[in-house]
Amino acid sequence: MANETIYLAGPEVFLPDPDAIGDAKKRICAAHGFVGLFPLDKALDLAGLAPLEAGLRIAAANEALMRDCALIVANMTPFRGPSMDAGTAYEMAFMRALGRPVFGYTNDARLFADRTRAFVGVTKGAGGHPRGDADPDGLLIEDFAMADNLMMHGGALASGGVVEVDQVDGPDRFTALAAFERCVKEARAVLG
Amino acid sequence: MANETIYLAGPEVFLPDPDAIGDAKKRICAAHGFVGLFPLDKALDLAGLAPLEAGLRIAAANEALMRDCALIVANMTPFRGPSMDAGTAYEMAFMRALGRPVFGYTNDARLFADRTRAFVGVTKGAGGHPRGDADPDGLLIEDFAMADNLMMHGGALASGGVVEVDQVDGPDRFTALAAFERCVKEARAVLG
Repeated sequence: MANETIYLAGPEVFLPDPDAIGDAKKRICAAHGFVGLFPLDKALDLAGLAPLEAGLRIAAANEALMRDCALIVANMTPFRGPSMDAGTAYEMAFMRALGRPVFGYTNDARLFADRTRAFVGVTKGAGGHPRGDADPDGLLIEDFAMADNLMMHGGALASGGVVEVDQVDGPDRFTALAAFERCVKEARAVLG
Repeated sequence: MANETIYLAGPEVFLPDPDAIGDAKKRICAAHGFVGLFPLDKALDLAGLAPLEAGLRIAAANEALMRDCALIVANMTPFRGPSMDAGTAYEMAFMRALGRPVFGYTNDARLFADRTRAFVGVTKGAGGHPRGDADPDGLLIEDFAMADNLMMHGGALASGGVVEVDQVDGPDRFTALAAFERCVKEARAVLG
């Protein structure tokens, strides 16, 4: 495992020019004495592979890249729904289970519960579930004053990391890096 | 680590009566020689805790429960958006990183790409991104003939597990267990 190397996780791999945001993140990492590794850094030869095989190749490469990183900084900004990108959630847990510090940031300052209520169209205190507010399917709206599902927020804090929160509106929410930089600074403070 | 113990992951912890589905899953596990452990099995004393503290306590308990399990069977049925519950994605990765077999099932038979296109209102082949179809924010719609984001589907297959798929409509999609039982059978075949 390379020390001081940060796995840069987030849905920005889906941007039209992911290298631009990857490079911006790497510059911030470098300014704080880290080396940032962006998932696309692994040049893969996917030519001729069936879609399933190509996806498996990328997943394996990302897992290998994580094993080489000392910590992770994950973009938890909500992605196509009230929660963060599930693939990024996977990556937070992968690093957590390897015993490495997990840092997260989100550019949506609402609490997960409030964001979920807005998504499913339920007002706070509406009830409908033995333990709180229900969505239209009757499932509980988790309400723990956290930025997302308790596994991610809890895993980050238990690992020694933090969850940094900003509010950025519109498409810039996927590229704004102030909260990301606070994570990197905090990582430097934690790692010494 | 207890052998032959299955961590039962999924958004059904949010159902009004999670014990009912938990018990049904445990019966299926028992029929195939496994012991199923449902996240709510850890009786926690959360009285008097602030919401954040309560959430952290639950997250830590779930991580401890996972460490005691030999494998995981995760409900990947889409949850409030095109992807699975992000907390369940976290749990798949946690077990994957611990080197344990990961099994997943979903009661939505559509491919992740098709489901995402439907969610964001984009038709197949619409393009708009250098690598495929874009959502209205310009972000790529991942298209790998998988049941969800490639990290989860890829992690399950790489671990020796499978992803089982059914189509169940309406609220029953969170409780139907045919695909779950196929996972448990396959786990028995894998573990011998």
